[in-house]
Amino acid sequence: MKTESTDANTSDQGLITLAHGAGGRVMRQLIESICVEAFNNPALALLEDQARLDMAEIAAHGDRLAFTTDSYVVDPLEFPGGDIGTLAVNGTVNDLAVSGARPLYLSCALILEEGLEISRLRRIMASMSDAAGVAGVSIVTGDTKVVPRGKGDGMFINTSGIGVIPQGVELAASRCQPGDCVIVNGTLGDHGAAILQARGDLALEADLVSDCQPLHGLIARMLAVCPQVHALRDATRGGVAGVVYEFAEASGRAIRLFEDQLPVRPSVRGVCEILGLDALHFANEGKLVAVVPREAADSMVAVMREHPAGRDACIIGEVLDGPAGSVQISTLMGGVRLLDLPIGEQLPRIC
Amino acid sequence: MKTESTDANTSDQGLITLAHGAGGRVMRQLIESICVEAFNNPALALLEDQARLDMAEIAAHGDRLAFTTDSYVVDPLEFPGGDIGTLAVNGTVNDLAVSGARPLYLSCALILEEGLEISRLRRIMASMSDAAGVAGVSIVTGDTKVVPRGKGDGMFINTSGIGVIPQGVELAASRCQPGDCVIVNGTLGDHGAAILQARGDLALEADLVSDCQPLHGLIARMLAVCPQVHALRDATRGGVAGVVYEFAEASGRAIRLFEDQLPVRPSVRGVCEILGLDALHFANEGKLVAVVPREAADSMVAVMREHPAGRDACIIGEVLDGPAGSVQISTLMGGVRLLDLPIGEQLPRIC
Repeated sequence: MKTESTDANTSDQGLITLAHGAGGRVMRQLIESICVEAFNNPALALLEDQARLDMAEIAAHGDRLAFTTDSYVVDPLEFPGGDIGTLAVNGTVNDLAVSGARPLYLSCALILEEGLEISRLRRIMASMSDAAGVAGVSIVTGDTKVVPRGKGDGMFINTSGIGVIPQGVELAASRCQPGDCVIVNGTLGDHGAAILQARGDLALEADLVSDCQPLHGLIARMLAVCPQVHALRDATRGGVAGVVYEFAEASGRAIRLFEDQLPVRPSVRGVCEILGLDALHFANEGKLVAVVPREAADSMVAVMREHPAGRDACIIGEVLDGPAGSVQISTLMGGVRLLDLPIGEQLPRIC
Repeated sequence: MKTESTDANTSDQGLITLAHGAGGRVMRQLIESICVEAFNNPALALLEDQARLDMAEIAAHGDRLAFTTDSYVVDPLEFPGGDIGTLAVNGTVNDLAVSGARPLYLSCALILEEGLEISRLRRIMASMSDAAGVAGVSIVTGDTKVVPRGKGDGMFINTSGIGVIPQGVELAASRCQPGDCVIVNGTLGDHGAAILQARGDLALEADLVSDCQPLHGLIARMLAVCPQVHALRDATRGGVAGVVYEFAEASGRAIRLFEDQLPVRPSVRGVCEILGLDALHFANEGKLVAVVPREAADSMVAVMREHPAGRDACIIGEVLDGPAGSVQISTLMGGVRLLDLPIGEQLPRIC
């Protein structure tokens, strides 16, 4: 592997130029000295145009391949609790995990803006590598493009992911049944609030940290102990409100949330009150919503609380027969109102 | 499926807004009315966060999974012979195919710039759908993000791809042997020249059309008839020059190209002469370079010429013992010179 660190084009003092995306020697040096080194694994080191993965090894994990993709365009690129790299790993790992899949392989495609500091790229690739290590996935294939100044925003990352769903695991939004309990694994809105603060949009000084974390370990534990989970989804853009609406619509049922049961950090609650926003609509990057039969709910919560990613797990609602597709919230005042589904953005570029 | 075409947010008269990427109802309508409809298939229609694909069906095709990713940032978005959508399908299909894989599934992740015409998005999604149909792949999972005006450039598309490599197929740049012949499937530089003209950078009126096409059908035919192929790669960014340099470096051999054998359209040759560029360095989007044992070369060329994607196939060079990693070109004048490997870009944002 070449690490011509004396070359100004790839040294940490340098900036990304259009040449870094043009398919020549400069691009090769950048990729080899930063990405291949950070993500160190045999498939990537071959530098072929595609990773080649042993089928028998993959098929040993289950009977269905899970395949997902997400582009990350978060602003700012670095924030308390993570950066665009940790987000790109954990977000895609979680999109696999909520199908019950064991996440195995990720791709990493970079769109860099001319002028990006190479030191920043190196830092973010290192945190992607760390996050992949924690999540137990390998980044096995990649791509780098560079766009001129003013045609991008520092960097965008796409990760696609491959995982395998074990036989017998059947999770689907459409499976929610009347009487089921709605469970979350912890506090709501931490990521959205942290991004808002990191952008400098808030005048207050609050202790806001993104909850960015992989959820597949928690989910594997949940399914091992209580395989009766009906539906599972991570609550990112659109927040928990978005997920429960999807559950209600896909199942043709109604969902009622209990306002007094919603776990929200005081600092996040403060942000919401000042801005007139609802933590149910705030993005999360390490939170899931699970729908489980009522009889399994208490033991599920107990199991989740034993896992670091589920310490604040609790029941926040229940599935009702109808009206189909509606979400109600029983308020602290004892009333019941319909929960708003956001039409558009509360906060763009959250992930 | 909802197709609320009276809604100004998703009608063809509208423009993309930040709300289209924010995870709410407006984003759902956009995705359902444009992408899900265009890519129509059961995995995508589930609208889960991941496609779930039958493992037995996949594993029946071979013993290794091929996995690849590419982001497409081409400027302009539409050009003679294709658009960013056809490029995003064929480019990723070809990155799978050159491993000998049968391409099966693609993802599609969009980064849209606020202000993009929805009619243009719909047109490009339709051509992606057509290209996927021609290539015999399904687009099974996706993602949509929107960035503010001035933070993107109309649209970027990432496609990742999954394919399966049949047992016994072993293609690798490192396998090039002295005496092997270097073959291409047709004329060089058509895509690069077409993009250059489409940008209005050329004062001349030439008949320049991108060669954007899927290569897996041609490759399957080549491997079926002549399984002795040593190395195979599609020549995109960096052109045929980039590929032969990679072959020479990975195998520790030298490659000599025959200048008088290089197939170049007169119109492309004209562009090269005017600009002082070399068609060997121009990007292609439907051209491959194959390295095969000398004794198989003539029959391979004959087989390729029977396929629509290989009508102009010919031998353009040979592998020599050394010097390791070098590429020579025997010129029309009867001399031999070293071929330049471009340091950076000849033409950025070609794909």
